[in-house]
Amino acid sequence: MRVSDLGEFGLIERLAATVSADLPEALVVGIGDDAAVWRAAEGFLLATTDTLVEGVHFRREWASWQDLGWKALAVSVSDLAAMGGEPQFALVTLALPVDTEVGDIDEFYKGLRKCGAEYGVSVVGGDVVEAPQVAVTVALVGRAQIGDDGQPLLLRRDAARFGHVIAVTGWLGDSAAGLRRLRDGIPADDPLAAVHLQPRPPLQTAHVAARLGVPCGIDVSDGLLQDLGHVCRISGLTADLRADALPLSPELRAAFPQESLALACGGGEDYQMVFVGPSGVVRSLADSTEDTLTVIGEMREGPGWTPRLLDAAGNELSPVPSGWDHLRDR
Amino acid sequence: MRVSDLGEFGLIERLAATVSADLPEALVVGIGDDAAVWRAAEGFLLATTDTLVEGVHFRREWASWQDLGWKALAVSVSDLAAMGGEPQFALVTLALPVDTEVGDIDEFYKGLRKCGAEYGVSVVGGDVVEAPQVAVTVALVGRAQIGDDGQPLLLRRDAARFGHVIAVTGWLGDSAAGLRRLRDGIPADDPLAAVHLQPRPPLQTAHVAARLGVPCGIDVSDGLLQDLGHVCRISGLTADLRADALPLSPELRAAFPQESLALACGGGEDYQMVFVGPSGVVRSLADSTEDTLTVIGEMREGPGWTPRLLDAAGNELSPVPSGWDHLRDR
Repeated sequence: MRVSDLGEFGLIERLAATVSADLPEALVVGIGDDAAVWRAAEGFLLATTDTLVEGVHFRREWASWQDLGWKALAVSVSDLAAMGGEPQFALVTLALPVDTEVGDIDEFYKGLRKCGAEYGVSVVGGDVVEAPQVAVTVALVGRAQIGDDGQPLLLRRDAARFGHVIAVTGWLGDSAAGLRRLRDGIPADDPLAAVHLQPRPPLQTAHVAARLGVPCGIDVSDGLLQDLGHVCRISGLTADLRADALPLSPELRAAFPQESLALACGGGEDYQMVFVGPSGVVRSLADSTEDTLTVIGEMREGPGWTPRLLDAAGNELSPVPSGWDHLRDR
Repeated sequence: MRVSDLGEFGLIERLAATVSADLPEALVVGIGDDAAVWRAAEGFLLATTDTLVEGVHFRREWASWQDLGWKALAVSVSDLAAMGGEPQFALVTLALPVDTEVGDIDEFYKGLRKCGAEYGVSVVGGDVVEAPQVAVTVALVGRAQIGDDGQPLLLRRDAARFGHVIAVTGWLGDSAAGLRRLRDGIPADDPLAAVHLQPRPPLQTAHVAARLGVPCGIDVSDGLLQDLGHVCRISGLTADLRADALPLSPELRAAFPQESLALACGGGEDYQMVFVGPSGVVRSLADSTEDTLTVIGEMREGPGWTPRLLDAAGNELSPVPSGWDHLRDR
C-alpha cells in the first residue's frame, strides 16, 4: 500500500494510532486536532529543530527507514542535551513522495518511537506533506533543569573562560568513518556504520554536567573543530587541543589508520558532547558518569578564535581538517 | 551574494541579527546556541508545525519571498488560533538550494517578521539545510488561555454537539480563487491573489471565542467541507450547511460566477475560522468581534459523518466539491 492509497488523513490517523501508546499524562490534546496541548509547570522551556533531507543528509540505499526515524529524533535530542535540557515533546514533519510505501512509514515511526522511548520523548504532533524527496523535520520541546536559585541550569556556548578544560564524551570520528564505509558498500551492521545510522547522544551525562555546574557545552554535529570553533568565537578565546588525546576507537584506527585523526577532527555527526569548564568540575563529571569522558585540551587566549590542534611536542598541526558546512559549495 | 558565499554559519549569524530586535523579555537564549530557551509560567502549552514545499504549496514565479515568509508563519498561527491559543515562539527551518540569493532570504525574513509582529510571535531558532528545492517548516509554540477554574480554554474538534450552530469568519473561497488567478498570470496585487499569498487568520476572534466558551473550532486550510468533515467524524455527527448562507465576497462572485460556491466549499487555504457551539454563545461572539461572523449551518445526527450542503429548499446538493488531500494522487 502506498501513501497515495491512504491519503493524508488516513496516514495521519494511522500515525496517531501508532504513537497513542506512548503519550504522557501531561498531554491534553495529541495528534488529530489543530495543535498539541500539554500541561507544563513553571520554569524554562527549550526548543530546537533539525531537518534531514534525502540525498543531502542520508541516502535511502543505506539508511533504513527505522534508522532514519531514530536519527531524525536523536539529532534534536543531542541539541537539547547540549543545553543540559530534558527533551519532552516532539512534532514530526514528514515530507515524502506520494508513492512512498506505507510500510516504510511504519518502519520510520518504529525507529522514531524507539528513540523516543530511550530518551523520554513523546511524539505529539506534526505534519505530512508531499515533496519530491523524503525530508524529515523534528521540532523538539523540553525543559531546563532548575538550580537551587530558581535559575535554569544551562550549558551555554558563550560560557567558556580562559583556563577551562575541554572534555569530550565517547569516541570521535566513528560516525564519519561509518558514512565512508556505507558509501563503500559495507553493510549497515558494520559497527562504525551503526554509529553513523543510530547516534546515541549522551543525554544523562549532559544532565549531570549541568547539575554539577559545568558552564559550557556543545554537541559534535559538524565536526569537533568546527563546533568548538563556535565556542571559541563567541567566547573570544582559542582552544588548544592535544591531537594524541583525542579519543579514537580501536575500530576507527583499524579501518582508517591514516585518516582517523582527520575524521575525528572534522568528520561530524558524532553527536557526542563537548564540555568546557573548570578542571575540578570536569573531573567531578568524569567521576559521576558511566560515559567515557576524555580531557582533550583547554581554552587559551588567542591569537584567533579557532581551535588549534597540537602535537605531542606542543607544535600546531596545520592545516587541520575542517568541519562540514551544509551550505557552502562542495 | 549567494547562500554558498556566506555559508551556513554566516547565514545563521545574519538571520540572528535580523530577528534580534524582536526578542521578548522572557527569552533566555535565542538563535546561536544549541536550542532556544525561554521562561514560561505554569499553564498549558500548545505546539504545531507546518511545511510549505516549493512546487507543491507555492511557486516562486508568483509568490515573492516576502509572501512566503508571511505565509509560512501565518498558517501555523492559524493552527494555534484554531485551538484558541496564543502563539509565542517560532522555530523556522529553511531548506534551500545553495545558489539561493541571500537577498531573497532577507526578504523571506522580512515577511516572517511582519507576520510575527502582527501576531506577537518571536523567531527564536531554527535550522538551515541544503535541499534541491525551497521548503519552509515553522514550528510554533504558544500557550492556552486559562479559565477561572484553572483549565485551558480550548477550541476542540471533538466538542461539537447535536444542535450546535456553525459559523465562519470572513469570506470563503477567495484564496482558492486567488490561486487560480495567479496560475492564469494575473499579478500578485490582485485582491484575491493577495488573500492567497498573505492569509490573515482571525486570531483575536478565536481568542474571544475560547474565552466566551465556544467549545469547538477548526481553521479552514483544506477546504470548508473537508475541514468540517474532521469535526463531523470525530464528533459522530453530520453538519447541514446552507449553500446560500456561505459568505462569498463580491470579488469572488465577480471573478468566478459559476464556480464561486465550489471554491468556497472545497478550495482551501482560507485560514478563516469555523466555530461550532450553542447558538447563544455564537451570537455573543458575533457581537464581540470586529471580524464578520456568518452562521452557515448546524450540527445534525447522521446519516454519515460528512457535511451536507443544502439548497434554499433544504435539498442536498450532490456531489459537492471536495477539499484538498495533499497526499492522494491528483
